[in-house]
Order: sequence, then structure tokens, then C-alpha cells
Amino acid sequence: MTDDDVDLSHHGDAEVGDGLRDFAVNVRTATPPAWLAERIRASVADLAAYPDPEPARRAVARRHGRSPDEVLLTAGAAEAFVLLARVLRPRRAVVVHPQFTEPEAALRAAGHRVERILLGKDFTFDPAAVPADADLVVIGNPTNPTSVLHPAAAIASLARPGRTVIVDEAFMDCVPGEPESLAGRLPSGFVVVRSLTKTWGLAGLRAGYLLTAPDLVSRLSAAQPLWAVSTPALVAVEACSAPEAVAEADAWAAGMGAERDRLAAELTSRGLYVVPSPRASFLCLRVPDALGIRVLLRQRGFAVRRGDTFPGLGPDWLRIAVRDRAADDELLEALRDLGT
Amino acid sequence: MTDDDVDLSHHGDAEVGDGLRDFAVNVRTATPPAWLAERIRASVADLAAYPDPEPARRAVARRHGRSPDEVLLTAGAAEAFVLLARVLRPRRAVVVHPQFTEPEAALRAAGHRVERILLGKDFTFDPAAVPADADLVVIGNPTNPTSVLHPAAAIASLARPGRTVIVDEAFMDCVPGEPESLAGRLPSGFVVVRSLTKTWGLAGLRAGYLLTAPDLVSRLSAAQPLWAVSTPALVAVEACSAPEAVAEADAWAAGMGAERDRLAAELTSRGLYVVPSPRASFLCLRVPDALGIRVLLRQRGFAVRRGDTFPGLGPDWLRIAVRDRAADDELLEALRDLGT
Repeated sequence: MTDDDVDLSHHGDAEVGDGLRDFAVNVRTATPPAWLAERIRASVADLAAYPDPEPARRAVARRHGRSPDEVLLTAGAAEAFVLLARVLRPRRAVVVHPQFTEPEAALRAAGHRVERILLGKDFTFDPAAVPADADLVVIGNPTNPTSVLHPAAAIASLARPGRTVIVDEAFMDCVPGEPESLAGRLPSGFVVVRSLTKTWGLAGLRAGYLLTAPDLVSRLSAAQPLWAVSTPALVAVEACSAPEAVAEADAWAAGMGAERDRLAAELTSRGLYVVPSPRASFLCLRVPDALGIRVLLRQRGFAVRRGDTFPGLGPDWLRIAVRDRAADDELLEALRDLGT
Repeated sequence: MTDDDVDLSHHGDAEVGDGLRDFAVNVRTATPPAWLAERIRASVADLAAYPDPEPARRAVARRHGRSPDEVLLTAGAAEAFVLLARVLRPRRAVVVHPQFTEPEAALRAAGHRVERILLGKDFTFDPAAVPADADLVVIGNPTNPTSVLHPAAAIASLARPGRTVIVDEAFMDCVPGEPESLAGRLPSGFVVVRSLTKTWGLAGLRAGYLLTAPDLVSRLSAAQPLWAVSTPALVAVEACSAPEAVAEADAWAAGMGAERDRLAAELTSRGLYVVPSPRASFLCLRVPDALGIRVLLRQRGFAVRRGDTFPGLGPDWLRIAVRDRAADDELLEALRDLGT
């Protein structure tokens, strides 16, 4: 596999529209919830003032048991990857695939060479696959698009003097209790990137953050545009970091998880390979001629995410978001009509 | 003057707070207007989707008589300066001062050497002051903090093969009809940076844009994080680019201008030097011991912007925002109490 064989800039949002039912974008739909939408709307009254990130920064620090100087708020996780790519100076950068393509795209755009590690059977992670002299490692947990949750210990074992490890935990709040998160431990040299986009239905707001050592926070902050995160986004970050919000997300994740497992079991019972032990809000499946199936699903009004633009997958792969039971049943019905 | 003698990162928003009446920040207060606030609030219902910049981009293009591929939407003008500093590779970069300090700060942060041109008497601009071999020139129009509006012809005369001219027009919509704007002309090699922040009271939303040739738009866009501008900001950009909104801003600018000129006349009648022919929503004045006056004003409940952090000004300068007549009269009264 060469490095230029897939379109790293393809994302699920390009697959939706035209009234299609959206199983392509990994964002919880029918959100943000009313209480959160109300807080964001109320912030419009304060828009004449420049944004003040400090209350949100303190709230994030409390939520993860960190110090505020270990927190950098960003305009979505996408900005975090761009800042990291610009500030870090890796000699040997390694990205563990399949995963969200933006970290690699940002590293390449910043002029870095990137090596890919492609995970093998069931997309589980073996730390021994990472070269000893890699001084930058990027890994997602749980992983988009495979939905695999790696053990925190496996990722933490990547720590080395002089090595930076970036863990994309954008979907970690899909996992009740977040037992494998490194946000609270933050081993030396680690950067944990988080997002509010998915669980809270805030993709349009551009709200995320990263956690790392204060000196790297300072360097990243210096590379960030002034007032990078908007007041409505800051209000959302603060609100979603409160204990009640974390509890609400946890309850949602538990319900979503039950529906995800039902959907996975049904697809598996039809003889499809669903990547085992899914833990995020989507499933990754291998379907013969997935691209053809995808086109036929679109004709029937369903958007699913093509898998071939993820390094390490290919034309036989699809990613589908978990929706509610009724919506998922419609998708299952459409798949059955197609003989799947 | 050395290059390191002032704090380029000081901005008016650091001067307010503690219940002070705000004459420090150049943002129209008591805004956004109700119709605009309502549109922004309504956009919260669409936050689950990723932002789609195209409608706003087309609206900006129409507003300035440009093509959409000449428009890059940014998270405020601040992001525009960071992107330009990262993508351009000037051999000799010149910044015309006094002006907003972020363009120089962004150029320095990106590793560029910056030369300053300090304007002389009354801060008018003589194009001959720009070195012939400068391949990057940054100038504000109308200028923050001096409020001086340079003739479009003087700035347009800076055009040279191989030279990029960045015109910060963040306050141009303070000038009814915008006769000196280069947005509609866009000479070859020019970049015009615009902001919605000031006139529409949207500092907290991070909404701005730049206009330049399509190839530079593409290069800047490639350096920008994915989904850089939030949905609420895009809604605001689109709404504020409509002809009725431009007319509303124009009417506001006319009223503001009358009050500004009254305030300037009153200050001048007290023997203060107010930079002549102010055209933006603020005044720049020379007051003996301005820093001392500023402290005494703070004790009386008024925040004004210190001038000493602007290259080319010094400890005897203040910038004050134009508010409504009643508020301005209170400031005038406080100044009189201080013997000014």
C-alpha cells in the first residue's frame, strides 16, 4: 500500500444530504439536548465580548482531574491535530491505522513524513508493532472507524523518553465510565484529544480540547489564533464538563451500547463480519462489494460511510452509525432487500 | 525603537471587567441586534451537522462583487492573519504602524522577520515609505488605533509584481459607503481581511473572512483546520452580507460617525490632540501622562485602551471607543474632573 492511495480528506459529512437518512456521520442526532441548546442560545446575549476561555478550561480540568494548565481548548479536535502537527518536530512519525484520517492529513500538510502501521486481525493493537525509534505515535481509542477499544495499559506502554503519543479519544465518551481513557492518567509525553462533537450533537459548534503537559500546552497555545474558540463553544464545553452532564452522557452511552450490540448481533447473524467488540457509536463491517451496496442504499434513501478511504480497509468495508432501534431496523430491512 | 519594546499581545479585552464602563474594546455594544441574535439562536437547532461554509461564502462574494473562489471564511480576522503568516514566505515583510498588533505577532510567531514603518504626522500614509523590495506589506484601513482612513488609491499604488499587500479592513464598515475599500477592486497581489466582529457585536462568535486571488485562497484553505468556522458564525456571515444588513450597518455607521465627530470636537476644544479625520468607531488621543489618566479613569469606573502597546504610539496616548451620547458625556465629565 502506498501512502497516496486513499483520499484522507473524505469524511462522513460528504456522504449525507439529499434527504438521505444519515448513517454516515458519527454524530448523535436529534441533539444537542434541550437544556444544552438553551444554554448555547443564551450565550448569544454575550457575543459582543471577546471569548474568555478560563471558566471552560477550569471545568475541563475538574472533569478529568487535571490542572487547568494541562488543558488547551480548541475549535474542535480538528484544530488540535493541526496545532500538534505544526508545533511538534517528529523525526519518525507513526500513525496507527485504520483510524480517523485527519491526524495524518494534518501531519502531511505540515510537511512531516508519516509511516502507517496497519492493524491486523480484528484490528486489535499490539504495542510491539510500533518501531522503537518512533518519536511520535498517533492512535485512536476507541478507534474510528473500527469501533475497537484498546486497553489503556497497551497504549500507556508506548511511553518512551523523547516520544510523544497522541491518543484521539474523540469517541471515548461512548464508553460508560471510560475505563480505558488516559485523560485522568496522562502518562509523560502523552496528548489526549477529546471532542464534544459526537455525544452532544455539536459538530457545527467546533468545540474540543486536548490534555497534555503544561509546556506543550503553552507551545500549542502560542501557535493558535487569538480567541480561537467561540463563546458558544466555550459555554458548551463548560456545560458538558459538569458532573451531571457526564452522568447524562454515560447513561446515553449505556443505552446506545445496548442498541449497537443488538445491531451488531443481527448483522453477524446474517453472516456479515462485524469488527468484534465494538465500543463506540458505530460499527465497521465487511460486506462483499460494499461500494456497490452503498450506492444501492443511497437509492433507497440511506447514507452509509464508505470504508475504502480509510487506510487499512478497502472496497469491501462500510461504517454505519448506530441510531435508535426504529431507524436501525429500517436500515436492516433495506440491507435485507439487497440480499445482505 | 527596537522590535521588542511593546507587548503585541495586549488587547482591549484585557482592560475591561470589574464592572468598568467599556471604552476600551472596539466592539459596538448592546449588539448583536435582535434580528441577528434570533438567527444565530435558531442555528443551534442545526448544530448536530458539520458546518457547510458554501452559502456564507457565496453571500460574501455577492456582497463585494467577487467570485466565491476569491473568498475564504475564517474564525475571525485573527485566524486570517495566522493563516497568511504560515502560508506566505516573505523575504522582506513590512508592517505599517501604528496598527492592530496581531498581523505582526502572527508573522513573528511563524518565524518571519518583520520591519516596521512608523507613520509620521497625523498618521497619514505615504506609499513612498514602503521599501521597493518589500514583498509583503501589511496595512490597516481605517487604521486601528489611529482611526485614520487612507485613500484607496494610495494603498492600491503599493501593487508590485511578486508583492503581497494585506489590507486589514476590519473597521471598514464604520465608513458609510466604504469608498476607500479595496474589497470590490482587489488589485493583483492584494488580500483584504474583513471582520463582522465590531459592527455587529460578534466578537465572541469568531466570524471573519478574507478576499484574494483563488490560488492563494486554496493555499490558505489547505492550511486551515477542517470545519474551521462554526455553524453559528456562518449563519451570521451570511446574514450580515445581505443587502439589508449592509444598509443597516451603513446607517449605524452614519450615526456613530456623527457622535464620534462630536466627541472629537469636544476633546479638541479642551486642548487635546485627537488624531485628525477619524473615520472608525474610536478616537486616538494624545494626553500628557495618559497611563496615569487611565488609572484614574479606572478608579472612576471607566476602562480606556492604553496606547503604549502600539508601536509608534507611547505612554501619552489613549484609544477610546465611541459609545452613545449619554455614555460619552459621562466619560467627558470624568475626564473634566481629572482636569483634562
